[in-house]
Amino acid sequence: MSNAVEEEIVEGDHREISVAEFFEKNKHLLGFENAQKSIITVVKEAVDNSLDACEEDEILPEIHVLIDEIADKKCRIEIRDNAIGLDRETIPKVFGKLLYGSKFHKLQQSRGQQGIGISASAMYAQLTTGEPVTVYSKQKGRPCHKFVVRIDTEKNEPEIIKDEVIDADSNEFPGDKDYYFDHGTTIEMDIEAKYTRGHHSVYNYLKHTAIMNPYARVVLREPDGNKVEFPRVSRELPPAPKEIKPHPHGVELGVLMRMIENSNARTISSFLQNEFTRVGRTSADEICDEAGIDTGRRPNTLEKDEIEQLLKAAQRVKLQSPPTNCLSPIGEELILKGLKKELNPEFSTAITRKPTVYKGNPFQIEVGLAWGGDIKEEGSYNELRFANKVPLLYKKSACVTTKAVEEVSWNRYNISQTGERPQGPLYVLVHIASVWVPFTSEGKEAVANYDPIRKEMKLALQEAGRKLGRYIGRKERRAIQEKKKRQLTAYAKEMGPAIAQLAGDGDSDQIQEKIEAMVQADYNPEQL
Amino acid sequence: MSNAVEEEIVEGDHREISVAEFFEKNKHLLGFENAQKSIITVVKEAVDNSLDACEEDEILPEIHVLIDEIADKKCRIEIRDNAIGLDRETIPKVFGKLLYGSKFHKLQQSRGQQGIGISASAMYAQLTTGEPVTVYSKQKGRPCHKFVVRIDTEKNEPEIIKDEVIDADSNEFPGDKDYYFDHGTTIEMDIEAKYTRGHHSVYNYLKHTAIMNPYARVVLREPDGNKVEFPRVSRELPPAPKEIKPHPHGVELGVLMRMIENSNARTISSFLQNEFTRVGRTSADEICDEAGIDTGRRPNTLEKDEIEQLLKAAQRVKLQSPPTNCLSPIGEELILKGLKKELNPEFSTAITRKPTVYKGNPFQIEVGLAWGGDIKEEGSYNELRFANKVPLLYKKSACVTTKAVEEVSWNRYNISQTGERPQGPLYVLVHIASVWVPFTSEGKEAVANYDPIRKEMKLALQEAGRKLGRYIGRKERRAIQEKKKRQLTAYAKEMGPAIAQLAGDGDSDQIQEKIEAMVQADYNPEQL
Repeated sequence: MSNAVEEEIVEGDHREISVAEFFEKNKHLLGFENAQKSIITVVKEAVDNSLDACEEDEILPEIHVLIDEIADKKCRIEIRDNAIGLDRETIPKVFGKLLYGSKFHKLQQSRGQQGIGISASAMYAQLTTGEPVTVYSKQKGRPCHKFVVRIDTEKNEPEIIKDEVIDADSNEFPGDKDYYFDHGTTIEMDIEAKYTRGHHSVYNYLKHTAIMNPYARVVLREPDGNKVEFPRVSRELPPAPKEIKPHPHGVELGVLMRMIENSNARTISSFLQNEFTRVGRTSADEICDEAGIDTGRRPNTLEKDEIEQLLKAAQRVKLQSPPTNCLSPIGEELILKGLKKELNPEFSTAITRKPTVYKGNPFQIEVGLAWGGDIKEEGSYNELRFANKVPLLYKKSACVTTKAVEEVSWNRYNISQTGERPQGPLYVLVHIASVWVPFTSEGKEAVANYDPIRKEMKLALQEAGRKLGRYIGRKERRAIQEKKKRQLTAYAKEMGPAIAQLAGDGDSDQIQEKIEAMVQADYNPEQL
Repeated sequence: MSNAVEEEIVEGDHREISVAEFFEKNKHLLGFENAQKSIITVVKEAVDNSLDACEEDEILPEIHVLIDEIADKKCRIEIRDNAIGLDRETIPKVFGKLLYGSKFHKLQQSRGQQGIGISASAMYAQLTTGEPVTVYSKQKGRPCHKFVVRIDTEKNEPEIIKDEVIDADSNEFPGDKDYYFDHGTTIEMDIEAKYTRGHHSVYNYLKHTAIMNPYARVVLREPDGNKVEFPRVSRELPPAPKEIKPHPHGVELGVLMRMIENSNARTISSFLQNEFTRVGRTSADEICDEAGIDTGRRPNTLEKDEIEQLLKAAQRVKLQSPPTNCLSPIGEELILKGLKKELNPEFSTAITRKPTVYKGNPFQIEVGLAWGGDIKEEGSYNELRFANKVPLLYKKSACVTTKAVEEVSWNRYNISQTGERPQGPLYVLVHIASVWVPFTSEGKEAVANYDPIRKEMKLALQEAGRKLGRYIGRKERRAIQEKKKRQLTAYAKEMGPAIAQLAGDGDSDQIQEKIEAMVQADYNPEQL
């Protein structure tokens, strides 16, 4: 920055800032505002990674979250999974370096996408308690590795403090032994933390996780020793998402220029076919024609203006939208299972929309509505927000999900509203699955309000709303019928004898029975 | 991340992510969501740096913002200042590397604090138009340097494309010559942009800047050639803020451990005195006693537990709060000048609170209220939000300023409310000056809702509110008086003759005059 540079002359105090220093000072951007929120963030990042890891290798997830209060406002968090375990070479960087990972450069749906989460948690532990992170990792039939790693914040590089092999069945391995440790990863951190209950709590985060990941078994041990299990209700994993290449309609000029610079393709045509999805021989040639560029030219001979032409052409040419096997929605059936399991509602419905695209990124919206039953009427509705199956507990009002809910006119579906929000014993579940979720901060707490996303959510909510509305409508009509029947029956009881007399027939009972039978018979009271 | 590492085994696609790649993909975090917002962000980052640079060297700022539409949705932005110019050695990194600067590691109020802003703008230009950034820099009596710089996004390192000396008075130097270029910096970027008017506009950003920086002269040339000048109304710069050392009450364990590790002080006592503000010999010894640690020990011999003890002790020991000459509020007088200049209100008032501290960071709140006059009644109030003199145009509802405004009961001050927000021809100005403003995102659009900050804002608003309330009250009473006087005068005109007759005196005019005189005289109509 300019004045920074004046200082260079004056004081020469100009410096590079390591990304770890940056996020240490800005830790609130990562969800480490305070001791109550930080414990949720740490659990979230670890559990997300464990779920990603299990799905990656098609293992039914088994996740244990053990929390102990080791001092005032200080907790030891231990999180274990049954994934295939970590490769010892990469452990240090995974936990000891920010902006390191395999998901960032990939177009594929996953919970993690930034390469910040878990190393930031380790950084937070180190910052608040001075303690490094401990990682136990065991791969099937291989020894159990124990690593103790800290971050050199000024360099954003890991420091390995311990690197040893331990006996997983011995007491060297922490925690209760009721969990068979054949393969998987366990991480252990001491952090400044405040364990609380209520909406913003580890418990609630795991409960929402269980709803959206019903094929996972999650166990929580709270500081007071109380054990909560979120059981597995489905044994089938959703199909694993595939990685895709970028779509020409979503790429920006600067990126295309870089791709061309780095490409060693021999012709533009092959470059386009190799680097992009949905570009075959024909469309590649079409794009070049449209741009007025010879398909046979070497990519690295293109001038900037020609590349700009190429991009504009690619965006004009009609192309299939990107393949959607890069997405892994959980599907209507599992959403319903999840809702029923955790909420036990009187009525529930779910919608999974077809995939669509924003800025070249495929995404897919799913919603669920749960009504009545064990759900208490608490005035406003309850929201269950998810991005790539990860619960979003914070920044509700800043989230596109809330904007979408507010755009639906719920009273059309027999659901009362205060202002724009629906009322009643109602849970609204909204899930966005995408290869790149546009979060409003690194803390991944809310999704940016992009039109294509909001519109898809609104359509899904309306579709589900109609179903719920019909149910509520039928129920109300039935209630009215019942009431009328009761009245008429009572009426029959009283008037029966009188009518009998008027009819000049002594047997009032018979007449009364007839009237009652008529009343009880299945007819439409509206006609009376 | 754990599954990332499984992939390492499976596919080995594990990679480091450069901070430039990260923010290129997450550019919405920096304020580059769309073409309309991005142009404001680019201007903002450049103008902030120019103002910082001028104040740094006590130069009355002169800033020109020239915007040309060079193609559909493409603008050339040129921003010039009259600061002392940039040192040629640092220009490349300042514009070609993210997380590089002198402000991040400093506890001193400045507009920039992250080392991201201007290089991110250059990155956005390169991403959307493929064009590098051009920088002209001239120091007094020295030649004018011209640099053309691009960012190697994958490395987050600058690439120098041109580095030459030009004749500043020749046509090699861009833009209109009405601006004498003796010293200063000019930057030129081509970006994807949409120039708009209204609340979210470059014009409004500069207007708000002019209000809060009345000692600056700012000129805007809009794409249609229309020139707007925001004149200078004060020739005195606020006192330049001083750099301070951290305060023991604001430091975290991990940071203290690092400071001790890096320290070559011979004793703990001297370490504490050298590294912290408000720690003299006596308090240093007090802290050591409290921690049960010998003041004479070498810092680097301390165990982690001992350092933890030391920190706890330092936080228990009573210390003066940090010095506040690191802050540079603009003061009540200049706030009033700014409000009057740009809004021409009927009544205005300003409050500058005493500095105070959050998490060891000194901060200071200023507010201003402007009422009536040229300010239109548009239902809800208008807000002018500033952080270190920088206007905040976005994320109003997420900002602590708005929460503070909503906590004040305005109707107590004769100002009507809808819900929690004040109504009427009202501008509410809120300014936070701090060595470290806790923004809710890298885009620096809103300030986090921290209790000590919100409370200070509320107190300031109440103080100013009382003044405005008194004014409005007096005005209403005066209006009532006027009305009564008019009524009585009319009454006198009619009744005068009658009374005269009753009095048996023919000269009704005299009596009428007497009554009118009485009515016009300065008395309290309430007594009638």
